[in-house]
Amino acid sequence: MSKKVVLAYSGGLDTSVAIPWLNEQGWEVVAVAVDVGQPGDLQAAVDRAAPLGAVDARLVEAKQDYVDRYALPALRMNALYQGRYPLVSALSRPLISEILVAVAEETGADAVAHGCTGKGNDQVRFEVSLKALAPDLEVLAPVRDWGMSREQTIAYAEERSLPVTTTRSSPYSIDENLWGRSIECGILEDPWESPPDDIYELTDLKTADGYRDVVVSFEAGVPSGIDGEALTPIQVIAVLGKIAGSYGYGRVDLVEDRLVGIKSREIYEAPAALALIDAHRDLEDLTLERSVAREKRAIDAKWSELVYEGLWFSPLREAFDAFAASTQDYVTGEVRLRFTAGGCLPVGRRSATGLYDRGLATYDDGDQFDHSDAAGFIKLWGMPATQWAKARRRR
Amino acid sequence: MSKKVVLAYSGGLDTSVAIPWLNEQGWEVVAVAVDVGQPGDLQAAVDRAAPLGAVDARLVEAKQDYVDRYALPALRMNALYQGRYPLVSALSRPLISEILVAVAEETGADAVAHGCTGKGNDQVRFEVSLKALAPDLEVLAPVRDWGMSREQTIAYAEERSLPVTTTRSSPYSIDENLWGRSIECGILEDPWESPPDDIYELTDLKTADGYRDVVVSFEAGVPSGIDGEALTPIQVIAVLGKIAGSYGYGRVDLVEDRLVGIKSREIYEAPAALALIDAHRDLEDLTLERSVAREKRAIDAKWSELVYEGLWFSPLREAFDAFAASTQDYVTGEVRLRFTAGGCLPVGRRSATGLYDRGLATYDDGDQFDHSDAAGFIKLWGMPATQWAKARRRR
Amino acid sequence: MSKKVVLAYSGGLDTSVAIPWLNEQGWEVVAVAVDVGQPGDLQAAVDRAAPLGAVDARLVEAKQDYVDRYALPALRMNALYQGRYPLVSALSRPLISEILVAVAEETGADAVAHGCTGKGNDQVRFEVSLKALAPDLEVLAPVRDWGMSREQTIAYAEERSLPVTTTRSSPYSIDENLWGRSIECGILEDPWESPPDDIYELTDLKTADGYRDVVVSFEAGVPSGIDGEALTPIQVIAVLGKIAGSYGYGRVDLVEDRLVGIKSREIYEAPAALALIDAHRDLEDLTLERSVAREKRAIDAKWSELVYEGLWFSPLREAFDAFAASTQDYVTGEVRLRFTAGGCLPVGRRSATGLYDRGLATYDDGDQFDHSDAAGFIKLWGMPATQWAKARRRR
Amino acid sequence: MSKKVVLAYSGGLDTSVAIPWLNEQGWEVVAVAVDVGQPGDLQAAVDRAAPLGAVDARLVEAKQDYVDRYALPALRMNALYQGRYPLVSALSRPLISEILVAVAEETGADAVAHGCTGKGNDQVRFEVSLKALAPDLEVLAPVRDWGMSREQTIAYAEERSLPVTTTRSSPYSIDENLWGRSIECGILEDPWESPPDDIYELTDLKTADGYRDVVVSFEAGVPSGIDGEALTPIQVIAVLGKIAGSYGYGRVDLVEDRLVGIKSREIYEAPAALALIDAHRDLEDLTLERSVAREKRAIDAKWSELVYEGLWFSPLREAFDAFAASTQDYVTGEVRLRFTAGGCLPVGRRSATGLYDRGLATYDDGDQFDHSDAAGFIKLWGMPATQWAKARRRR
Repeated sequence: MSKKVVLAYSGGLDTSVAIPWLNEQGWEVVAVAVDVGQPGDLQAAVDRAAPLGAVDARLVEAKQDYVDRYALPALRMNALYQGRYPLVSALSRPLISEILVAVAEETGADAVAHGCTGKGNDQVRFEVSLKALAPDLEVLAPVRDWGMSREQTIAYAEERSLPVTTTRSSPYSIDENLWGRSIECGILEDPWESPPDDIYELTDLKTADGYRDVVVSFEAGVPSGIDGEALTPIQVIAVLGKIAGSYGYGRVDLVEDRLVGIKSREIYEAPAALALIDAHRDLEDLTLERSVAREKRAIDAKWSELVYEGLWFSPLREAFDAFAASTQDYVTGEVRLRFTAGGCLPVGRRSATGLYDRGLATYDDGDQFDHSDAAGFIKLWGMPATQWAKARRRR
Repeated sequence: MSKKVVLAYSGGLDTSVAIPWLNEQGWEVVAVAVDVGQPGDLQAAVDRAAPLGAVDARLVEAKQDYVDRYALPALRMNALYQGRYPLVSALSRPLISEILVAVAEETGADAVAHGCTGKGNDQVRFEVSLKALAPDLEVLAPVRDWGMSREQTIAYAEERSLPVTTTRSSPYSIDENLWGRSIECGILEDPWESPPDDIYELTDLKTADGYRDVVVSFEAGVPSGIDGEALTPIQVIAVLGKIAGSYGYGRVDLVEDRLVGIKSREIYEAPAALALIDAHRDLEDLTLERSVAREKRAIDAKWSELVYEGLWFSPLREAFDAFAASTQDYVTGEVRLRFTAGGCLPVGRRSATGLYDRGLATYDDGDQFDHSDAAGFIKLWGMPATQWAKARRRR
Repeated sequence: MSKKVVLAYSGGLDTSVAIPWLNEQGWEVVAVAVDVGQPGDLQAAVDRAAPLGAVDARLVEAKQDYVDRYALPALRMNALYQGRYPLVSALSRPLISEILVAVAEETGADAVAHGCTGKGNDQVRFEVSLKALAPDLEVLAPVRDWGMSREQTIAYAEERSLPVTTTRSSPYSIDENLWGRSIECGILEDPWESPPDDIYELTDLKTADGYRDVVVSFEAGVPSGIDGEALTPIQVIAVLGKIAGSYGYGRVDLVEDRLVGIKSREIYEAPAALALIDAHRDLEDLTLERSVAREKRAIDAKWSELVYEGLWFSPLREAFDAFAASTQDYVTGEVRLRFTAGGCLPVGRRSATGLYDRGLATYDDGDQFDHSDAAGFIKLWGMPATQWAKARRRR
Repeated sequence: MSKKVVLAYSGGLDTSVAIPWLNEQGWEVVAVAVDVGQPGDLQAAVDRAAPLGAVDARLVEAKQDYVDRYALPALRMNALYQGRYPLVSALSRPLISEILVAVAEETGADAVAHGCTGKGNDQVRFEVSLKALAPDLEVLAPVRDWGMSREQTIAYAEERSLPVTTTRSSPYSIDENLWGRSIECGILEDPWESPPDDIYELTDLKTADGYRDVVVSFEAGVPSGIDGEALTPIQVIAVLGKIAGSYGYGRVDLVEDRLVGIKSREIYEAPAALALIDAHRDLEDLTLERSVAREKRAIDAKWSELVYEGLWFSPLREAFDAFAASTQDYVTGEVRLRFTAGGCLPVGRRSATGLYDRGLATYDDGDQFDHSDAAGFIKLWGMPATQWAKARRRR
């Protein structure tokens, strides 16, 4: 009797070919497509899985779960790997892993499979997540194992007349979910080349017109409205992403340090994610106490590295999240973002729980700050450096 | 015989009034204006000092020194306080302090004086610097001590017919040097109010036209040219600042954590500084080894806090600079910045000393990365989290 | 009508003299002695307060509270300032502040007072705590304000025939609670002088005899027994402190960086605290996942600095505690400590929730570790450094 | 013609057997034994290499180099992995790698080989070092590859009548150099078992007699004498190690997080290293400015992790060393250590470049600290926490 594997299936070339290939290796395949907000007709893709040889094919709707348990915690952390990449794919992999494991348990499968190659980050994210969630499940990586080039993969599909779209495909490798979109390969592999305009789907500089102000509301660190209208987080992401994208805002172009030790050139567009992080950080500047804000900025960066590197299911991510959760109670208020062509600048913020005190800050008559406190403060603040300067002079 | 004080003199209302006020307290005043790239006729201001009562008045040219010993080290550190403010005033205070001490030694003065109030950061920067450089010099802070409001200060000047321009002055408090410009007070003290357009001098969104690509060159972390033309750092700052400013790029609007423990709302424009930091960081992503880059990002932030908080003359700043200096040898190459209206995005970078290796990174035929290494790596990489997940499950 | 002040009263010279002195300044004094485990007859001290002029005098029993809410969280953080000082006094000040505020509210007092001088840390700890807890209460610091030397204070007491023990007192300044004891002043102010033996009360090297093994149990990071006998945390502290002290273990002698910017030489003895931290850290090495353990060591140090510097009532302490709480679930097990004369070494540890896996660790036949995974791991682990070495060689 | 490999040869079972085994694989073997202060007759071991089949066998004296370029930098960093392990083996691996590469270049070898297994740290340290130093040299790991158990290895040697000592060997695996000694395997693999006394060679509790004070001198962070007598660093290590060891001081027993992702139980004895670190840290407390000391403690820990994990030849280690070098100029002075049975406590320290200022620190009449500065300091120091407490109360 053949063994059963649950395959993370997208409907693209690689995971389509993986079905017959796994069949040939003696596996029954359960194909699972997870909807995390990517574009295209996912149901149609799922419908193609049985003809390809899958014994079972499912579409799992996971957008709400993705936002609640992955995107919002990332926003709370202002998560930007290398200070720039908002962790688009890195956030979806652990959730897809959870779903694969759940389906494997339900269907009594012996293994799970992903369609990643051997030099990217996603293989690590999948496999570390899967090991943490279900250490006894075997993990297959057909695309990493079969060693076929893209041309060979297409030939493999043609020989078997597989129902996959093998026509003149895009030279780019794309991944997308509702937190953003990544584009790599092709000419982008030369980091000196400017990205061609036609790679962008979510952002367009040509539709930018003057500037536009948008007010984003937050409740305890969670986005809750746009321009005064109450919205769910998923709605805020959609609405703000549309506006930001129409100003061409949200693009990222960087040389990235992959977990597997190499540098790669990556392009992203994440208009909603970047604008929300801009707004959230600005509101934190108003509502977090100084030393919390400093420490959190350092932890934000470490959390981003941890999640980038596939360690979502780790006790350190949980401990960082406990830290962060304790800081967000008062991150409630509004931020006005001003979008220009390719730019986004917070230009106003307010909060009933903010720590700005005009009576202390003003240089006007209302000044309640006791200026004479400063002299003693400065003396003791500078004491260690002063003592050191004296010791140096002695010598 | 009266004692002598060296006053940091700008020609503005406060330091102009400080001259007769110090005279009245029994001090001979040596007025020193330091040129760090601020606009206006500084020599004319110096010429007004004698009529105000100064026994000596000097203009010290310090732009080159400011760039070489302050702005470039800040660029090397990608220095942004709170991730946003490029330390414009914080960088000039220690240099002005050095000059005050030098003039005090030359003129045999007993004290030095600055014109800061009691609630800002600059008083700390001056006094800690001065104590470190010359612990035996007395430090006076007339503006902090006299306790006059702006109106009272004007009245004081009028009563004495002082040659100061007391007409309808700007409601804003401005500081500027060649690394940028700060604007505070007035309506800006309400952090919810958008800054009026007329506060900006260095940046203009209305002159933005489509996009413009500019290539910035660096040699060992120091900017060395624009669009292929070799320039001095001071020239790069001027040229790039002009271009960036013409696209309205370089504005910062934030609620800032002052050293004295309060939050204030601050507006900056620093087109050259921000664009140079964008380019320098991008080139570091290409040329720094991953773990160095991560550690340096954390140290960048700490250096910025340290300098913001007045501790330029401290052993920690020196030790951080030693760390940073050791990382910049290979930060040599070019970055193409694309300016849009209010936006700036690196869109290309190259370096003969870069760590990007297309043979390793490519998904094309030239691939030299051994995909089979990944499996062992992933297993050991995920081992600690996996062992922890097992322990949790046992329980 | 005179105003009322609640005084933190210890029965020592300074706070005894403070009662009549405050009376003379027009204050009614409520004297509050807080029992945090210091030695001596605290009730007798409280009984002396009325004769000194207090309108009300109270003894507040706070040992349980001190252990539960201050000492145990410090143990969870392995709290050692500068890696050495277990925060003895720093932990009691915020609790005493809470009690002062509670009594002030109950008695309708207008102010609270502490007996600290102007150059120590405790004034900061009291005043910052009090401001955070009750910003509207006035805070008095009579000892800092009256400017009397010790001799003058004694003379003041003698003139008024105050019932204080002013006889040939110890040259040392002592503070003690159940987490340890601090000794400063006198000959100890010369950091080159070895501390005289007679300053120690809790530790004695002369009673050490060979070695003694003691097994300490923990439940989720909290000490729960000694040598297999279940005990409350307060009992563990007492029993283990006695044993450790009888081996002369628990002494600390260091030059300490005070918050007010100066270095001071401090002696502590904290046999229970240090032995418990030794055991707790050892158990964490067995039960915490590697990256959590590393990050927690850094946060342990920061928490210790924060609390040392008086910021117990701060959002950063709360956020750090949330981090730490999330890590302790599995810190359950036993550690065998071996005490020698002045030494303490963990020599065994076990835990049902530990992460040590003999099957993976052994070099014996039972080895379940797949050695072939190592090659791929090493290659990718070393990749960034290797690429950098290549770039350097190219140049 | 056969290819040539340079083997890191110790004369022990594994590297002895490796010679004929490599011959059988077609390699000519150059055996290199590196003297880093391990005990035993290394020359005799080298003399056995030719009979085993080596074409060339060398003893390279490297003690001075090891101290100057590895042990002293580790001391400067107070290097203790997990706060406890002084990096004994981790320090020698990169130096041995340098020597292997030098011999390979001199002899025109095609490869280098080490005798590590596949689950320890040393394979990583060797291979990452070798790749960084000579990316084109092949690296062989015969012991990892041959997959023989200890019994099989002995059988292999007996079948071939190899001149190796295969008699009833110690159940422990030992590594030693002049910075310390590690012991693992056998009963030690049960972390609950106390280590038997007979595993220790460098430390003996039974010879401890009362206490003994020893004064250690440093010049700019480098040990320079004992009890007033000028000594070279290598002499200080020998003399202090002897004294500390005679008091049974220097033992470490911990569960360690290996780089390959598993926990192992390790025993070390490093009397000289631990006592020197105790003294050096104490002198730093006297001579380093507060914020430098704090940052350096964090960097000390990171440096230790980096070197533990095989990344000696990395730009981050170099950058950390640049940081550290900038801090040591004034770490000059003397520390008095008091040794008891198993204990070591600094009890006095002095330095002409120290930052302790008795005039500021004293509570005596000589007090030069202005107590009134404290009030202003405390107010501004506590301001952020106070503002936060107010905001919380409002809510």
